[in-house]
Amino acid sequence: MTTVEHLVPETNVLAIASHVVSGYVGNKIAAFVLQSLGCDVAALNTVQFSNHTGYRQWKGSKTTPEEITSLYEGLKKSHLAEFDMMLSGYIPGATAVEAVGHIARELNEKALPGRFFWVMDPVMGDNGSLYVAPDVVPEYRTLLHSADLILPNQFEAELLSETKITDLDSLTTAIQNLHDRYAVPHVVITSVSIPHLDHEPSTLSVVGSTMTSDRKARPFKIVFPAIDAYFSGTGDMFAALMVVRMREAVCAAPDAETLTKTASWISPDDVQPLDLPVARAAEKVLGSMHEVLTKTREAMVRELESKTEVMNGEMDDMMMHLIKSKAAELRLVRNPNCLRQPGTQFKARKM
Amino acid sequence: MTTVEHLVPETNVLAIASHVVSGYVGNKIAAFVLQSLGCDVAALNTVQFSNHTGYRQWKGSKTTPEEITSLYEGLKKSHLAEFDMMLSGYIPGATAVEAVGHIARELNEKALPGRFFWVMDPVMGDNGSLYVAPDVVPEYRTLLHSADLILPNQFEAELLSETKITDLDSLTTAIQNLHDRYAVPHVVITSVSIPHLDHEPSTLSVVGSTMTSDRKARPFKIVFPAIDAYFSGTGDMFAALMVVRMREAVCAAPDAETLTKTASWISPDDVQPLDLPVARAAEKVLGSMHEVLTKTREAMVRELESKTEVMNGEMDDMMMHLIKSKAAELRLVRNPNCLRQPGTQFKARKM
Repeated sequence: MTTVEHLVPETNVLAIASHVVSGYVGNKIAAFVLQSLGCDVAALNTVQFSNHTGYRQWKGSKTTPEEITSLYEGLKKSHLAEFDMMLSGYIPGATAVEAVGHIARELNEKALPGRFFWVMDPVMGDNGSLYVAPDVVPEYRTLLHSADLILPNQFEAELLSETKITDLDSLTTAIQNLHDRYAVPHVVITSVSIPHLDHEPSTLSVVGSTMTSDRKARPFKIVFPAIDAYFSGTGDMFAALMVVRMREAVCAAPDAETLTKTASWISPDDVQPLDLPVARAAEKVLGSMHEVLTKTREAMVRELESKTEVMNGEMDDMMMHLIKSKAAELRLVRNPNCLRQPGTQFKARKM
Repeated sequence: MTTVEHLVPETNVLAIASHVVSGYVGNKIAAFVLQSLGCDVAALNTVQFSNHTGYRQWKGSKTTPEEITSLYEGLKKSHLAEFDMMLSGYIPGATAVEAVGHIARELNEKALPGRFFWVMDPVMGDNGSLYVAPDVVPEYRTLLHSADLILPNQFEAELLSETKITDLDSLTTAIQNLHDRYAVPHVVITSVSIPHLDHEPSTLSVVGSTMTSDRKARPFKIVFPAIDAYFSGTGDMFAALMVVRMREAVCAAPDAETLTKTASWISPDDVQPLDLPVARAAEKVLGSMHEVLTKTREAMVRELESKTEVMNGEMDDMMMHLIKSKAAELRLVRNPNCLRQPGTQFKARKM
């Protein structure tokens, strides 16, 4: 039997994101994904909510910026703040974002080149609307200079690059802007939806790039079939998988010996877009994502059918929304092989 | 390849315990164990600490009794409080213990017989000393009447049964007292250390029982080799594994059809001690425990050797304690098959 030992390098990850009691978003899904792939995870929870906010009602409380800093100080004091990588997700408020940035910069400063890598999911909004306070946006712009890999969705990429993405040209400009302005080494924009980027209406693309030594983009795209349902936590699952697969791809690169000792794991200029470790990583991540989402959609349809049958039509809009939200929770715990050994293959292509 | 789908029944668990950012105790280990075995886990964290208290220093904060209640109210409001089982671990303070008891009783009252099962780890102390406030003890005594399976260590069993365990007779009396006084259906005392119970100095025993209809104990013991090192989180790992394996054993019992619809899954009076589902469950759990602890001890020795070499003898007592505490963290994430398919077998025997 294949064991996880053979799959990924041992990796100690600090994951800073939200916690929900029920369901699968933020650290609740990121910690499980990382641990399932064999990583030790220090999970610093930025909130504890009963459920994710997509339900439109929840209870719980936020961790204050002071508590975030204090928890990190606690780790340092007991010599537990030795991390290979950091993953940051939802952080409540500009001051807390600043506190997390301080942690990442300190961890980076005390590490040898290539020995610390920060994957930042700049959680700000989606589908054209902001769901954090407006002062969080400039805070993220400041922090971008310290991140190694950022994973904005299309809306967040627009905010950070100050470029409206409407076609292939503006998409390329947005990526180039992110490299130019913030010197952010690796960018992966999740779920890009542009008419005619892929010539098929039922597909989406992930678009990524690692900059060259003169900050030139090396863009690639991976086209994958869209699933006609909305799931919460997909960005968090994507980010956790990227953490593991990025390190795995860098360790498996032909020039791994030097690359793992290079700051931010930036491949030499002669490495072509389709040969970048970040492209290898994103391919594998999308295989896992597609399998989990396919299983989730199937289970969701079954659950909705059985629930609506039981309720016999007697449901108000809110009740229907709650049932739909619950049914759409990601189905991960009974499908661990989708994470470990995805059979599905998507290949990176030139832009 | 064997997948988790074939191993355990789908089980929705509410786990109420502590959270540590770094390391493996409380919900940090319980949630991963339960999820690894295919359970959906609602993890309600009673504290968020940087690390476990065995390090003798930590940062973080406790969840208040009001917050615990509020998080549960949040789940109820969104129809997310449908659980097959509940696991409770460390709860800070008597009022919080009372709040958790209220949750368990409410979940039990709204469920059909056999459709809700509460596994309670009455965390109060170990090795002769209390590490909670004294008013927690009577609160647990009150709650015991509502629990289905309790997992005290030897010290906690003494506190709850008000019987000092020194030999086989007093051990049997303690178990009988727990059934008699609190009508608690299933008891498993973890790590019993009694001279001559097993005729070998390097072994420990787990001792368990399911009461009959007239509250008579049906005691069994499982003897296993002691590992000469102290690890934190073993009780939490044991409890999480017992949750899964108990339901699995009940569902696999010859009389599963009726047993799963019987309140507290109490086997008929003619079922002998060694045939009890709780004995089956404990056997399997101890196989996993022994494998994880063996791997942990090996890794601990390696880590201590390499760390003390680097430090070259220049360490004060506190530094040495911190290094030892870190090295003794349970090694789970790279040994998932120890949880899923333990190869080690320990058999229950008559007392």
